[in-house]
Amino acid sequence: MKLDELKWDERGLVTVVVQDVATGEIRMLAHANREAVENTLSTGEAHFYSRSRRAQWKKGESSGHTIRVDEIVADCDGDAVLYLGEATGPSCHTLEETCFFERLDAGAAKKEPALPILGRLERELNARRDSSGDKSYTRYLLDRGAPKIGEKIREEAGELAEAIANESDERVVSEFADLFYHALVGLIHRGIPLRAVLAELGRRFGRSGHEEKASRSELNAPKG
Amino acid sequence: MKLDELKWDERGLVTVVVQDVATGEIRMLAHANREAVENTLSTGEAHFYSRSRRAQWKKGESSGHTIRVDEIVADCDGDAVLYLGEATGPSCHTLEETCFFERLDAGAAKKEPALPILGRLERELNARRDSSGDKSYTRYLLDRGAPKIGEKIREEAGELAEAIANESDERVVSEFADLFYHALVGLIHRGIPLRAVLAELGRRFGRSGHEEKASRSELNAPKG
Repeated sequence: MKLDELKWDERGLVTVVVQDVATGEIRMLAHANREAVENTLSTGEAHFYSRSRRAQWKKGESSGHTIRVDEIVADCDGDAVLYLGEATGPSCHTLEETCFFERLDAGAAKKEPALPILGRLERELNARRDSSGDKSYTRYLLDRGAPKIGEKIREEAGELAEAIANESDERVVSEFADLFYHALVGLIHRGIPLRAVLAELGRRFGRSGHEEKASRSELNAPKG
Repeated sequence: MKLDELKWDERGLVTVVVQDVATGEIRMLAHANREAVENTLSTGEAHFYSRSRRAQWKKGESSGHTIRVDEIVADCDGDAVLYLGEATGPSCHTLEETCFFERLDAGAAKKEPALPILGRLERELNARRDSSGDKSYTRYLLDRGAPKIGEKIREEAGELAEAIANESDERVVSEFADLFYHALVGLIHRGIPLRAVLAELGRRFGRSGHEEKASRSELNAPKG
């Protein structure tokens, strides 16, 4: 789709959803006029249009909390676009990471960022690490540290390999989940955000169908 | 936030973004009046308001492609909400999974769904499996099948365990990415969607801070 084909509304605007390409988190929702979309395309930095101030604005121009935009994807009827990229710092003026943090339904925690599953899982495991008196299995693993976590990662990998070779789909799914969970506990033990792994996978596998450049290939580079 | 606190626009509407909670994929963008939000909350099925037809509508009422909504999260200024849940079938009237599939920038493939990194990776690896003449490392692994894939999963798990215990953050991230990639190739070999693993993790770890109920705990249930 071309810029000309977008369906600008009566004020000359389209709706913009901003999504973090690594975590899938929706950071904010705003509007853009044609100039703002053009500037986003040409600079790779998120630009919007303020309906109240009637002016274009660049995200982070005062706060420093910019948003890098790698891709812009229009929806089927062309009146909304998605900015896919990565934010520097919080994206909300409240200094929350995302503007979407107010649960409307009768959720347990009213203020909690809206996150896809992996982000929730990471948040939950971090909370267990930081909560005194927690008696979860996660806390047990973290207390035992790298040797125990490593032992479990190896064990679960063996079970996943076995399931892939010989067991049901349900077993494969369950063992993959076990392995992922224990590997994530390893990240949390080290204080490394899951986003770093997702970003690494993103660097290795571009969306354009390139060969997995950075992935070590034993066809080309045996690891010994 | 309560329904009363939402900022309905001059037509009595808020903007609604619909996101798949497992994959993070944004499925569609639409509008809702108060009745549509209330019906979504009470039924757990996505309801919207059509500005052209001036009527409430339930997603899937004619197509059967409903969207289950687990949570509704409002943004900071209350004029937009996020429906987080899971779609049955395609969400777009074009029968694409998501309405967001038209790249506006000069991307390689113009029609390609907007996906966070893991979804892209899975899509890319499936494309390699299905493409004849592909000479990628992924294809090599898939051709060798479960024994080779399993061997690599075990090997990468050992390297991740070692990195967690003794190596730099960069090594941990790289080894986690290696392990994840090889495990995902195992899923693709079996024809199992990554969404199934994400959904399993979602079932085990609710957002409400419950103990990881379904996760096998060796504190309570030694695996032998």
